[in-house]
Amino acid sequence: MNHVMSLSLAEDASLVDELAAITGRQHVIPADDDHEPYVVDWRGRYRGRAAAVVKPASTAEVAEVVRLCARHGVAIVPQGGNTGMCGAATPGADGRSVVLRLDRLNRIRSVSALANSITVEAGCILQTIQEAAAGVDRLFPLSLGAEGSCQIGGNIATNAGGTAVLRYGNTRELVLGLEVVLPDGTVLDRLHALRKNSSGYDLKQLFIGAEGTLGIVTAASLKLFPRPRASALAMVALPEIEAALELMGRLRGTVGDRLASLEAMSRGQIEVIAEHVPDVSIPFALDAPWYLLIELTDTLAGTDLRAPLEEVLGAAFEEGLVVDAVIAESGAQAEALWKIRHSVSEGSKRAGYVVSHDSVVPLENQALFARNVERRILEEVPDARVVMHGHIGDGNIHVLAILDAACFPDAAMAAPVALRINSVVDDETAALGGVISAEHGIGLSNRARLGRVTNPAEIALMRRIKALLDPAGLMNPGKVLPPEA
Amino acid sequence: MNHVMSLSLAEDASLVDELAAITGRQHVIPADDDHEPYVVDWRGRYRGRAAAVVKPASTAEVAEVVRLCARHGVAIVPQGGNTGMCGAATPGADGRSVVLRLDRLNRIRSVSALANSITVEAGCILQTIQEAAAGVDRLFPLSLGAEGSCQIGGNIATNAGGTAVLRYGNTRELVLGLEVVLPDGTVLDRLHALRKNSSGYDLKQLFIGAEGTLGIVTAASLKLFPRPRASALAMVALPEIEAALELMGRLRGTVGDRLASLEAMSRGQIEVIAEHVPDVSIPFALDAPWYLLIELTDTLAGTDLRAPLEEVLGAAFEEGLVVDAVIAESGAQAEALWKIRHSVSEGSKRAGYVVSHDSVVPLENQALFARNVERRILEEVPDARVVMHGHIGDGNIHVLAILDAACFPDAAMAAPVALRINSVVDDETAALGGVISAEHGIGLSNRARLGRVTNPAEIALMRRIKALLDPAGLMNPGKVLPPEA
Repeated sequence: MNHVMSLSLAEDASLVDELAAITGRQHVIPADDDHEPYVVDWRGRYRGRAAAVVKPASTAEVAEVVRLCARHGVAIVPQGGNTGMCGAATPGADGRSVVLRLDRLNRIRSVSALANSITVEAGCILQTIQEAAAGVDRLFPLSLGAEGSCQIGGNIATNAGGTAVLRYGNTRELVLGLEVVLPDGTVLDRLHALRKNSSGYDLKQLFIGAEGTLGIVTAASLKLFPRPRASALAMVALPEIEAALELMGRLRGTVGDRLASLEAMSRGQIEVIAEHVPDVSIPFALDAPWYLLIELTDTLAGTDLRAPLEEVLGAAFEEGLVVDAVIAESGAQAEALWKIRHSVSEGSKRAGYVVSHDSVVPLENQALFARNVERRILEEVPDARVVMHGHIGDGNIHVLAILDAACFPDAAMAAPVALRINSVVDDETAALGGVISAEHGIGLSNRARLGRVTNPAEIALMRRIKALLDPAGLMNPGKVLPPEA
Repeated sequence: MNHVMSLSLAEDASLVDELAAITGRQHVIPADDDHEPYVVDWRGRYRGRAAAVVKPASTAEVAEVVRLCARHGVAIVPQGGNTGMCGAATPGADGRSVVLRLDRLNRIRSVSALANSITVEAGCILQTIQEAAAGVDRLFPLSLGAEGSCQIGGNIATNAGGTAVLRYGNTRELVLGLEVVLPDGTVLDRLHALRKNSSGYDLKQLFIGAEGTLGIVTAASLKLFPRPRASALAMVALPEIEAALELMGRLRGTVGDRLASLEAMSRGQIEVIAEHVPDVSIPFALDAPWYLLIELTDTLAGTDLRAPLEEVLGAAFEEGLVVDAVIAESGAQAEALWKIRHSVSEGSKRAGYVVSHDSVVPLENQALFARNVERRILEEVPDARVVMHGHIGDGNIHVLAILDAACFPDAAMAAPVALRINSVVDDETAALGGVISAEHGIGLSNRARLGRVTNPAEIALMRRIKALLDPAGLMNPGKVLPPEA
């Protein structure tokens, strides 16, 4: 063991002591203890090391930890449920940073049916917030696969999307106010649950989607909505992806905002699920190229949503816009249809090594994007299995290139091929006026890609904002911003 | 005429020549020409002077003007329809700045029913955008008194509100993308009409509500919505303001998002209208303290909105929550009811010198705010006529203290009294967890007030952002940010 390493260990011990003085010893995990759950992302793509993991219990403790780390020049990696898609919560390999877990900031500070809002701490599990909203007969609409374990702080930090964006927007649109610990330990309290505010610059916007690189979100006031009390669900087979957009236009024209979800899956995507996920029942022969889940909801109990849905689908069937359709006759049938969609990640992961994408393009280019990307990936990597699922109406189609796990057992082996596939997807995204991340964020995975397809003036301004707020570069370093050339 | 003045005139002449080289001579109005429409705000509260007024026709011309002014160290005051409430578009008194009018950037670049979006230049009149949306069977929901002359660039710069915020949000929530000319003349193109985006910092948010102090918005992509095809309108008399919030809760519980507008007026506010605006017909005896307009809309043609409205109001009447009610039986009757609300500004202006406010407080404090403010203003200025109108559900009640025009003929005479009234309103706003501007902005009127009631850490961060983007301080100087202590 050389001198530098010894010194570093001694420093670690001192840091752990100082952290323990803030949070209590039992809430600091030193580097020689088990860090596995905190230094690897859930997909196992990234592995880092941390000088310590610390779990403060309050905003004041977070601020103290931030000030302590600032004094020592130690970087901080904020971490929520560690369910992110892009490695934004994984520490770097140098082992010099502190992972700051938000788990213990998990109080629901207030909920108001009158004000249609809820104020929660960053470590609240998304599902807990959904349940608290339901408890006062309201809906918190953010809904995504990891909702049982992801934390709202992470959802805000990545501006998460999910299956209800079509009607309710991304996380950013659900945030009324934020409490943030700035890189110098100042607490910025913009937590008021005000529906309107035009009183100077809207500072909270800076921290939404910034993935902890500008400060640490410790609490948020969020919008609630009236709860849907009626719904109708259909799954239809489409002759081509363009039909999904035409159907969307027709549904909007009749049922308007009652259109709550519009989730498309390519035939290949459903085949992957059918092959790898047991207990999923597919109500079609899988002879069409695209399938679409359509959900209508209404807040007025007893509203007949089935009639307008059948009317639109009936006319579409007559015209060949829809080649087959099932409408859920019960809650259980609706659940069975949704289970297909919710099995996308599991099925794909089991099918091989997945190179996944999160591009969003203008709606009018969505069909062209899907066609071009599939063709070009197969030209580049003929053995890839290209499947897609996505949020029709948001312009966000997830393109997955699944590689044979026998040939590509891990990220290191897959990296060169993944790079080529990413280039194809990114070029097509940029050419069609889109951006590479709709709802997953940038993190580690996408920072080089972001730099490649984004206007340098934009990147330059992002860098200047980062330098302004975090001049020492201690807040989640190496994330979001592209590597310097 | 002294030497400095001559030099300054010579400089002006040279500046005018250089501006003319960019836009053509006919689009530059030199200082010795008529500047009256450009240097006075519409309420006549502020008067400035300009070295020149320039009307570029394109984003490229705006960028050239910005670069020219940056080279000469000349400040720029961007101006849209000049309908702002806070003097943000009025140049300073020194006559050294250029007023940059956006009128000629008035093209609708594209509109898409499929993508539910429209891309417009900053100088488009709001009403023109509403009409273009209607032309493709869609709704652009931003709606406010000045919609026939205000420009969308100004709406974005002030994060304007209006009567549809309850359902659709402030302007910020309607913006998908922006094109902005930065203070150094760089064009930031974040104009893509993407519904989702989590690709790095959301730079466009900086410019929304910044009132031209960080750059000039030249174009925007905006959300469209399905058009309402059914509506119902009622006006009810309430025994107290609390009843408005209780009614809101009940309506949300039954008709959910169909609740489109909820506009309250105090009895005094309606009396002012009845006294000063001809052709307004008030369907009540005015013996209740508060009146409320309730509008429900639905995108599904033929939906019966009247039945649930009558049901809620009937039950409320039984319980004494509503003391009188009229429901519009025709489009003409609905228009007549809306005319009362739309006559608020005209009536108040004719009633005397108006000291108006734009506070927003958390909903649970709204009733207390209204009561306390009225009492405390009358304690402070017993001769004031205190009336209120506001957006129930947004927490935004406009408090107007109307002073006798014989005693207070202009802003200069009214200033000392206005300051005292503002202090009362601001203190109450801050004490109840609100902010002083919900939808009008800060401009000149409110910058000192903003400084007085805002956390210094927030103001400090706003100043740092201003200094980062506009280090020379040439973009709409003296607006938004509080005067330095």
